[in-house]
Amino acid sequence: MDFELSEEQRAFAQTARDFALSEFAPHAAQWDAEAFFPKDAIAKAGGLGFCGLYSPESIDGLALPRLDATLVFEEMAAVDPSTTAFITIHNMATWMLGTWGTETVRNKWGTDLTSGRKLASYCLTEPGAGSDAGSLKTRAELKDGEYVINGGKAFISGAGSTDVLVLMARTGGGGAGGISAFALPADAPGVSYGKKENKMGWNSQPTRTINFDNVRVPADHLLGSEGEGFRIAMKGLDGGRINIATCSVGAAQGALDAARRYLNERQQFGKPIASFQALQFKLADMATELVAARQMVRLAASKLDAGHADASTYCAMAKRFATDAGFTVCNEALQLHGGYGYLSEFPLERLVRDARVHQILEGTNEIMRVIVARKLLEGDADIR
Amino acid sequence: MDFELSEEQRAFAQTARDFALSEFAPHAAQWDAEAFFPKDAIAKAGGLGFCGLYSPESIDGLALPRLDATLVFEEMAAVDPSTTAFITIHNMATWMLGTWGTETVRNKWGTDLTSGRKLASYCLTEPGAGSDAGSLKTRAELKDGEYVINGGKAFISGAGSTDVLVLMARTGGGGAGGISAFALPADAPGVSYGKKENKMGWNSQPTRTINFDNVRVPADHLLGSEGEGFRIAMKGLDGGRINIATCSVGAAQGALDAARRYLNERQQFGKPIASFQALQFKLADMATELVAARQMVRLAASKLDAGHADASTYCAMAKRFATDAGFTVCNEALQLHGGYGYLSEFPLERLVRDARVHQILEGTNEIMRVIVARKLLEGDADIR
Amino acid sequence: MDFELSEEQRAFAQTARDFALSEFAPHAAQWDAEAFFPKDAIAKAGGLGFCGLYSPESIDGLALPRLDATLVFEEMAAVDPSTTAFITIHNMATWMLGTWGTETVRNKWGTDLTSGRKLASYCLTEPGAGSDAGSLKTRAELKDGEYVINGGKAFISGAGSTDVLVLMARTGGGGAGGISAFALPADAPGVSYGKKENKMGWNSQPTRTINFDNVRVPADHLLGSEGEGFRIAMKGLDGGRINIATCSVGAAQGALDAARRYLNERQQFGKPIASFQALQFKLADMATELVAARQMVRLAASKLDAGHADASTYCAMAKRFATDAGFTVCNEALQLHGGYGYLSEFPLERLVRDARVHQILEGTNEIMRVIVARKLLEGDADIR
Amino acid sequence: MDFELSEEQRAFAQTARDFALSEFAPHAAQWDAEAFFPKDAIAKAGGLGFCGLYSPESIDGLALPRLDATLVFEEMAAVDPSTTAFITIHNMATWMLGTWGTETVRNKWGTDLTSGRKLASYCLTEPGAGSDAGSLKTRAELKDGEYVINGGKAFISGAGSTDVLVLMARTGGGGAGGISAFALPADAPGVSYGKKENKMGWNSQPTRTINFDNVRVPADHLLGSEGEGFRIAMKGLDGGRINIATCSVGAAQGALDAARRYLNERQQFGKPIASFQALQFKLADMATELVAARQMVRLAASKLDAGHADASTYCAMAKRFATDAGFTVCNEALQLHGGYGYLSEFPLERLVRDARVHQILEGTNEIMRVIVARKLLEGDADIR
Repeated sequence: MDFELSEEQRAFAQTARDFALSEFAPHAAQWDAEAFFPKDAIAKAGGLGFCGLYSPESIDGLALPRLDATLVFEEMAAVDPSTTAFITIHNMATWMLGTWGTETVRNKWGTDLTSGRKLASYCLTEPGAGSDAGSLKTRAELKDGEYVINGGKAFISGAGSTDVLVLMARTGGGGAGGISAFALPADAPGVSYGKKENKMGWNSQPTRTINFDNVRVPADHLLGSEGEGFRIAMKGLDGGRINIATCSVGAAQGALDAARRYLNERQQFGKPIASFQALQFKLADMATELVAARQMVRLAASKLDAGHADASTYCAMAKRFATDAGFTVCNEALQLHGGYGYLSEFPLERLVRDARVHQILEGTNEIMRVIVARKLLEGDADIR
Repeated sequence: MDFELSEEQRAFAQTARDFALSEFAPHAAQWDAEAFFPKDAIAKAGGLGFCGLYSPESIDGLALPRLDATLVFEEMAAVDPSTTAFITIHNMATWMLGTWGTETVRNKWGTDLTSGRKLASYCLTEPGAGSDAGSLKTRAELKDGEYVINGGKAFISGAGSTDVLVLMARTGGGGAGGISAFALPADAPGVSYGKKENKMGWNSQPTRTINFDNVRVPADHLLGSEGEGFRIAMKGLDGGRINIATCSVGAAQGALDAARRYLNERQQFGKPIASFQALQFKLADMATELVAARQMVRLAASKLDAGHADASTYCAMAKRFATDAGFTVCNEALQLHGGYGYLSEFPLERLVRDARVHQILEGTNEIMRVIVARKLLEGDADIR
Repeated sequence: MDFELSEEQRAFAQTARDFALSEFAPHAAQWDAEAFFPKDAIAKAGGLGFCGLYSPESIDGLALPRLDATLVFEEMAAVDPSTTAFITIHNMATWMLGTWGTETVRNKWGTDLTSGRKLASYCLTEPGAGSDAGSLKTRAELKDGEYVINGGKAFISGAGSTDVLVLMARTGGGGAGGISAFALPADAPGVSYGKKENKMGWNSQPTRTINFDNVRVPADHLLGSEGEGFRIAMKGLDGGRINIATCSVGAAQGALDAARRYLNERQQFGKPIASFQALQFKLADMATELVAARQMVRLAASKLDAGHADASTYCAMAKRFATDAGFTVCNEALQLHGGYGYLSEFPLERLVRDARVHQILEGTNEIMRVIVARKLLEGDADIR
Repeated sequence: MDFELSEEQRAFAQTARDFALSEFAPHAAQWDAEAFFPKDAIAKAGGLGFCGLYSPESIDGLALPRLDATLVFEEMAAVDPSTTAFITIHNMATWMLGTWGTETVRNKWGTDLTSGRKLASYCLTEPGAGSDAGSLKTRAELKDGEYVINGGKAFISGAGSTDVLVLMARTGGGGAGGISAFALPADAPGVSYGKKENKMGWNSQPTRTINFDNVRVPADHLLGSEGEGFRIAMKGLDGGRINIATCSVGAAQGALDAARRYLNERQQFGKPIASFQALQFKLADMATELVAARQMVRLAASKLDAGHADASTYCAMAKRFATDAGFTVCNEALQLHGGYGYLSEFPLERLVRDARVHQILEGTNEIMRVIVARKLLEGDADIR
């Protein structure tokens, strides 16, 4: 066992931190306030390899372990969870395309995606199929060498501003086994987008519904084989859950750092409020939760890297734990700032709003509990 | 002991509910999105007596018990906590002016305030004096029959859009005993306002700093006597804490009602999500917390109405408990809505953002604990 | 609305407090350590009317409202939750016998039970029928004017040391509708008792299984009519839940009072530990939870007294909330005592052990959530 | 980074598990009920090296990393936290003696202690010096080549049944810098023991006060140098905190395993209670907390092994987190067992009682927060 980052990993994290401080920090509040999608900044992240961190080398991805990817995501999320979370989703979709895509598909989009010149959306959820993703209704029918797609998706990150859609649609019968995965151009004829949703947070990435009206996709845009889509989607989500969990860890670290500074600076009753024991205890608990959350994420990432049989269980645990802890830490940090925490002038309320959705998406934390409990009660989860 | 509302009280609450549904409900989301201060709607509330609920009859207030006032505030807050919270602050300031104001002051503004034709702000907090309110620095010096005011205030609700300021300023030496209370015109020469703050919530009421530069106020605009200001401010806050606590109870009730409906309507895995036991349990806990919070508020209000020696302790308990419970219930209701809870199309995320600040203002929940603990450890609090 | 106790109620509570301090306090630790069932002390409580507080006057009960009964139980439980809890169970069983018993039954046992000269056990739970009480298997068959009882019960408080059993047994088909209630002598031929269970707490009352082997009971020992037994049992439990909840409130008050004293007395780092803010905050939260719990209990009791349509829902809420809060407060008080809290020399660890079971029995707190959620989701619970 | 145990480590843990199942499991309930100190079983553990796991080889210790020691302790604690906890304390005291003892001292007791043939107690706490250990009053004065010890200790594990005392006493002025550490025979003239304390749990190890009345100790029984005692004691406690935290992890694992089995076996409402979602979710949360707690312990152990500058901070975090999580998991497991969880026939209530004290000793969890906060606010803790 070894809990220390290597020098290389530390250097890598430092690069991400520096990047986030120079490219995200000066703008994050504004991007949030104006609901601006910073495609240029994302492309710059791509320039450092951050858009294809664990994508295969065949599409110029860095092919890094998930654990290493978390180091980058965490540092960026400490500054801007919303923009970083989009980048993680893009990484997930790009990895899926790079892993299961045909040569045609990989050649068409691969390097543009890993470089961040183009962006991808992950299209699984539907208005009537959220937690019950396996019941999705969007259909893809093979006709004359093309798939014809009809249906609709909801809550799609980046939708309307991305270039490629990684789409789960039903090619066969009901249930998870009838689902296939596709890559298609975001501007294919018949693809239309709903209005940009107004949200509590995650404002630097647009969220829209997508409608598919007889959208035609070449047969070789299928990812993997027919019927394999749900499995592919879930494979993507295992990593996606680690990514989102990492974004919560990052947000919490950003909030904790702000709180440490504030407690030392802010004076009340003639002394720094850092001298009040109840606030000290709160800070200690925040830090402890944060460290535990980070460990859970790294543990799950290493299980995924190792192809551990219970990797999905660990990912579910990490996602549940870290996103709950992340929200709590951000929210406590807001409280420690008093009224100033409630103002947009300080980053706290933005961190809280951004971190809030992490408890919901990529599988709600309720679904994470379903996953963990199932494994435990079937008796074969090795969590020792 | 009697835990039932009288018929009259029920009717009164129903009036408030009907008013809120017709005048607030259709606009609350928009007021939030556009940061619009709905002075007309507030004036309509005034038309029903809701702007002077417990103000004395001498200024045409309804002179109701605090307990009855909570019934009105709760119903309005179930629809729009932000607008309602401003109305409660206006009620508090108006009550202070009506209770301690000279005849001149009461004649000048009283009935305009209780009717909601004019609005009042409560000006206590300063940039460097938040939890430590007694250390405030704004000075009022008596010169030639006028008080000359210099200094500044922060986090003032309504500032820049209200007509009267109820101001705490230092006329004597350091500490709480050197503070006096004043009423003054919001547009007096020398009064200037900061920019409208961007906030996490409470967007339907403007928040600004105020600067006082040699502002001259007639001597008879003093409320009570010199040195009595801090006591007056705290008296106001006892009721203010109940009010804010009630706004949290209302927000929680609005959120709970939405969640009950949603669980019955939303289908996943082929059945209403209301059939999932873990969600049922969450709902049960939310309702239980809410009922407990409401009881705490009513208990505190009744203690204040009765002039109970430990009324301030009960108000602090109620504020701490109900604002924490209110936030939690709203936040859980958001979670029960899944992704939809995060969209502004549903009221949940607004309720969460609005309820969040209740844990901070009118004395942070940390200060509430200081108040309660002090009483307990001095050994004379009768909380049986 | 009126949240104040009457003078009479205060005097009544004071009587209970004095009684508990003189008759329970000097012995409670020893009764716990030696698992001694203090029948004499219980009889003394009966001498004050505390064994038939809400039983009908026809059996010399005091016929008091449930709310008044909680005042007595709370005061006694502040000293000895285990003994008090048994007394509440005895009150419940006695009330059932006095309310639904035939004249024969009431004449035979009524006044002996209300006076505490004899004691009663409530026999519902079976080894295989805990939360699912309606599935109980003990049978009572009417033969030649007698009911012949076969089966077994588990977790029966007082079993082996009481005189009368109030028993639920199946006279008809499956489900709740086939159950009837009986009163029978605890020493009837064919009744046998298991060994005294070793338990975490509640040591001053014996718990045993009971076996019924062709036990014959006269037909007029039926309580109510055939098939009414489950309804009677649940009616009993509505009050029983308030009673147990009250015992938790009492235990918490006892623990809080001990903690207040200890914080002021114990010195560390050269000053009373009461001066440490984090401990102050913990104490404040304990007191606040306690006050809320007490309010929930009194609210539920008043709903039951008034025959409110949702009384069962309120009882379930109160039981869930107060027993959770009670355990938490006792447990925090233990923590505030440091190592001394862990020693039996101080009452804290006993209060924690006794209060723990309140979260389990009279319907687990999980079942309480089922009850509350069902009402909420059927949409007809009026909890405003 | 590497989160996997080596084969050797797994084998080692398995040895401990087998040992605990054969030597502790059949007796743990009885040892608890009878407050029996199982010196023979402890000596058998010593036979496997478990009494000197990280003690130096110079006294025949295994000189293992702390991380490896946690594997052994965790497995034993899953069966019997109380006995295991004593063994960890013995390990700590033995390590101190082996590390700082003179050759005389090491020769006299070293191998007897690492083999478990003799046992050691750690004597720091005094009646008036608990959290404020640095204020201890027991004095050791050097006279004629011997230290003469006067004073008293409290809450000493094993006291009265052990052979060696590792004692902290004041040789110099006030404060931590005036304290020295000693090893002395437990039966030295002038050493007397108080009565065996009755406790909530930890019943298989005796706890007593110790009185020192002119106890004479040879000068070479000093550990380290004069004035170094507090530093030595704290060094011991860093590891001691990991040990206790591990005992909580073990207890939680034992409780979780029991709950998994019980949920699958116990039937209510015609199906295994494992099928109830709310119970599933509870189980999932328990497992997640447990995994996080174990990670925190291993992280801290690895920091201590590596001599990391912030090792003490990590130990404090791990102790706080894991002992809180451990208690919660045990307590939830008890709840999942319903009434059976409250009976001593099942191990749950014992695990709860044993785990409870872990939140208090080796520095209360409040003191852990003080340690963590201090580091954070001094700004130099590297917890990333």
